[in-house]
This record gives sequence, C-alpha cells and structure tokens, in this order.
Amino acid sequence: MNEKTMKPYVIGLDLGGTNSVFGIVDVRGDIKATTAIKTTGFRNAEDYVKAAVETLKVIIKDVGGIETIRSMGIGAPNGNYYKGTIEYAPNLPWAHNVVVPLADMFSEALGIPVALTNDANAAAIGEMTYGIARGLKNFIMITLGTGVGSGIVIDGHLVYGSDGFAGELGHIIMRPENGRLCGCGRMGCLETYCSATGVARSARELLSATKRPSLLRDLKLENITSLDVAICADKGDELSKEIYEFTGNMLGEACANFAAFSSPEAFVFFGGLTKAGDLLLKPIRESYERHVLNLYKGKVNFLVSSLEGSSAAVLGASAVGWNTR
Amino acid sequence: MNEKTMKPYVIGLDLGGTNSVFGIVDVRGDIKATTAIKTTGFRNAEDYVKAAVETLKVIIKDVGGIETIRSMGIGAPNGNYYKGTIEYAPNLPWAHNVVVPLADMFSEALGIPVALTNDANAAAIGEMTYGIARGLKNFIMITLGTGVGSGIVIDGHLVYGSDGFAGELGHIIMRPENGRLCGCGRMGCLETYCSATGVARSARELLSATKRPSLLRDLKLENITSLDVAICADKGDELSKEIYEFTGNMLGEACANFAAFSSPEAFVFFGGLTKAGDLLLKPIRESYERHVLNLYKGKVNFLVSSLEGSSAAVLGASAVGWNTR
Repeated sequence: MNEKTMKPYVIGLDLGGTNSVFGIVDVRGDIKATTAIKTTGFRNAEDYVKAAVETLKVIIKDVGGIETIRSMGIGAPNGNYYKGTIEYAPNLPWAHNVVVPLADMFSEALGIPVALTNDANAAAIGEMTYGIARGLKNFIMITLGTGVGSGIVIDGHLVYGSDGFAGELGHIIMRPENGRLCGCGRMGCLETYCSATGVARSARELLSATKRPSLLRDLKLENITSLDVAICADKGDELSKEIYEFTGNMLGEACANFAAFSSPEAFVFFGGLTKAGDLLLKPIRESYERHVLNLYKGKVNFLVSSLEGSSAAVLGASAVGWNTR
Repeated sequence: MNEKTMKPYVIGLDLGGTNSVFGIVDVRGDIKATTAIKTTGFRNAEDYVKAAVETLKVIIKDVGGIETIRSMGIGAPNGNYYKGTIEYAPNLPWAHNVVVPLADMFSEALGIPVALTNDANAAAIGEMTYGIARGLKNFIMITLGTGVGSGIVIDGHLVYGSDGFAGELGHIIMRPENGRLCGCGRMGCLETYCSATGVARSARELLSATKRPSLLRDLKLENITSLDVAICADKGDELSKEIYEFTGNMLGEACANFAAFSSPEAFVFFGGLTKAGDLLLKPIRESYERHVLNLYKGKVNFLVSSLEGSSAAVLGASAVGWNTR
C-alpha cells in the first residue's frame, strides 16, 4: 500500500459564476462533507483563494485533517486542463482579463496536488462516471447556469483540443445579425439567450416591448429571474411559457448544429434552468428535430442530469482530482 | 509473407459531387494508375457502379490484374464508415433519398474487401498521412467543392460520432434568418455560401441586385462559375473580388464557431475554391480573428492542401482501404 492509497479523500470544487461549492469525496463517489462560498465579491484571485481555503479548512478538519486528502480537482469556467489556469473568464470579475494559475495557487495553500478543468467538462466527467451518461461514448453535456457551458465527449474521451479550451459552446454565435450583446464582447452568443440570465433578459425584453398581461408584471422588471419565469409559467402565465418555449427553441436549434459536428447519441442538460422540466425539454426536442439535417433525425436522446444540485460538477471535479500525479 | 502483403495495391476512389476519381496506390502512397468518370448522369447506384467497374478494369489490368489489388477504399459524400453506405446525400441524384450499400456493391463486383468513409474524412486522412497535416493532432479539414465537406481530427483520430456521420460542417446554419435555400432542404447552410456553387450564386445575386459594372457581365448569368469569378478577380474586377471577400468572411466566421467546439491547431482547406489563393485565404484569416472568442485568438493556422488535384482524397480513400480486413 503506497502513500496515495492511504489517503482516502479528494476535494472537488465546482467553481460557478455565482457560487463555489466544495465537496470532500471518497473513491466510491460518496460526498463526505460539503461547503460553499460566493464566487464573486473578491477583488482578485488571491482574495478568493484565501476565503476558499479558510472555508475548506473547517470541512477538512471534519474528515480527519489534510493528511487524509490526496488531491484536489477543480471545475471552473474557462479552465485549462493542460495548464491548470483560468483564462479570460467573461463571467468571473477576478479572472476576466487575466490568466489565473488557480491550480498552483490552491496547491501552494493546501500542500496537495491540484488539477483543474472547465466546469462543464467536470460536470460531463461526473455524469459519465456517476450519473445518467454512464456507458455513453458520444454525448454533449450542456450546463445551463449563469452562463452556458459544455463538455464534449467523443469515443469516451473528453475533448480538450489543441490548447485545453475546446467545448465553449455557450459562445457559438446563434444570431450573427442583430444578436444580443454577450459578456464576451461579441454579439448573438447562445449564452445570451439560453442561460439563466438570458431567460431573465428575454422576460425583460418581452415585457418592455409589449403591453401583454403577465404575472411577471407584479415583479420589479430588473429583479426578474429565470426561476420567477418558471414559477409564473407553472401557474399558466402565457407570456412566461412563451419565454421558455423561445429558450428551448434556441437550444434545439443550437443542438442541431452541434449534431453536424460530433453526431452524439445524447445531449445531457444540467443546471438551474433544467428545473423547468418539460417546459424547456419539449421545445428543445421539437426544435431539434425541426432544425437538424435529415441524416441525424430521430437518433438523439435529450437527458437531464440525474445527479442532484451541483453533485455532478463536484463529483466530476473530484474525478479530475483523482487523476493528479 | 501472407496473402495480404503479397498484394501490393489498393484502389482509392474519390467520389465527388461532379467527378469520381480512381487511383491505384501502393503502400508508400504512390499513385500507380488513375482514371475517372462523371458521378452524375446515372439513373441509380447500380448503373453508377457498373460504369465505374468498367472504367476501373482498364487500369486494374495495367497494374497487373485484380490479383495485385488487396482492397478498395472510398471517400463519398454522406459516407458511413461503420456501415459502408451512402445515405441521403443531397448532392448525389442517385443517392438523394436512399441508403446505398456502395461498399458491398463494389466488393461484390470486384471480389475484394471495400471500406468507405465520408469524402472529406478521406481527404483529412490523406492530408494527415501524406500532406500538410502530417504531425497535426487537432485539425479540421474543410473541402470546398460542389458542396462543403469536413473531416474533424481530434487527438489524432478522425471523429465518426455515434452513427458514423459526424463532421457535416457544410450544413452548419450560418444564417438562420433569411438564409439561402440549401440542397438539404433547410435554409442558411454554410455550403450555400462557401461552395463553388455558392460562389457562383453570390455572383448571380450581386449582378442581378445591382447595376455595378463587372467583367462578369460579359458572361451569361446562368453559366457563371466560381472559376470565372476567380479569373475576373485576378484581372482586378472589384465586384468579383468582393464576392471572394464575402465568401472568405463567411468561412472565417464559421471557423470561429468551429474553434469553440474542438479548438483545433489548424484548418486545412482543400478543393477547387482554394485555387483563388489569398483572394480567399486573407479574408478567412481576418474574419476568423475578428469573430473568434478571445480565448482562441491568434492560435490557429490556416493551411491549404499540399496534395495536388484530388490526390489527397484518393490517397485518403486508399488509406481507408489499407485498413480493411
């Protein structure tokens, strides 16, 4: 028995645009302890890591101290697997215009090896290892959170590309003409329509542009969230239902283009927006079949993550951690 | 020495929308004999195979008879590597609405094993084995012929996807609103703008919509080809230059989206349109850098096939043939 096998745990960090969720995970994928901090509100990466380590120390102590931890895995937006960096992440104020060597920073602070990958890649690995994508060799994971992320699996392997940054499908241009301005500085990205913020934006646009009645009008325009839209749609609000239909249509159209790339057997959706259920999934399916090339019609499954909350991402991040040397 | 190594040759067939080019190739990639027939003008696949075999027999005899041929490899539009079929190929009148078991048909007629893949995949394999993509692990081959095809290489492997049909990037929707009608029945496909026929279509559109002077006006509108446009552009014709610029802009924009998928180190262009050289390549490069996500800027090479004529596709098809069992 070598030193590695004597350490039973790995830390997984799901670093999202809004929250950072930590889990201490054993080799069977059981999450032994969990904690979280807000991702935003820090001046720079140093402050973020400092706050993260302070919070982590509590649960590390709970499981038996740092001696029980083998390594750490991070899933983060614009994460580079090859270099352990976060680079120019449009949704992270402290990593917007810089290259942050986050794996090295955590490694130094904790004294353990740290590996890092794109947050959506981590979710895809989690889903493939523990979730609904078990056994799938060709699928595309699409995370619908603050932004839209993706992890592409081809022949059972995650696609990292030449530079470690493959799979940024949230920034595929869906509307090259008159598209919405994206956080990345370009126009018409998928993310501007199909993220949680995109849904809220659709609501504000539709409420401002029309005089149509809607339960959403009881809320302050600038405070409307995608959850509000889902709740109102559930209550039968026509305008809210239309917004989810619009969002699903756009996602189906995007998936039809993605099919022409890697012809996956499934798309797996993950993140807050999927809570809307068939309100979102039905228009995705219908729009996909309407838009896709004949060749691909009727071949694809649309699945929703089977792992609760951010488990898929935390477990995926931890799986990345197990593979550190 | 087994029977296989005693047979020194493989037949490669580059089955294009217009021409079908055959080559008899040795293990070092030397093309020993070549011949061609028109692809179109046949009532059905049976007639096509019959004509192909008649023509092939002449060069088979030249190299020493069928006893010297180990196998055959085919690169064909909508070719399925897993099944050896051509399925619903929009540009092939005799395979438009049917599944054609072309590998089996040739195998039966010639008495040798036959393997088949997408024509652009074959070109990518040819380029990777013998051409400018030698040593590249992550690249996308884009063929600009009658249609637009693609072969995607990730980590040194061709992407076939779940069903053998991955990599139909000519049918990525570039203009979801008011796009041109494509042979596939949908609107706004890349192929409607950036194929040879797309360039001719751009010329006809621009000539009809404006009264601008152009050398192209000396030609009959319906007979204008992409080559005519290149020739006139070379002579300094502004309108013709603009058409190539428009085409290159669209290709650059498309490649910027493809980067977000597999983040390749290079795009390799192949086919008739590349004869226009920098007239096409310059706007591709500029448009790509203008459209691509910050993350990918300045990382990609734009290359043109180094293999003459249809050699890349024939050699690629033959490479597929070497791998038959």
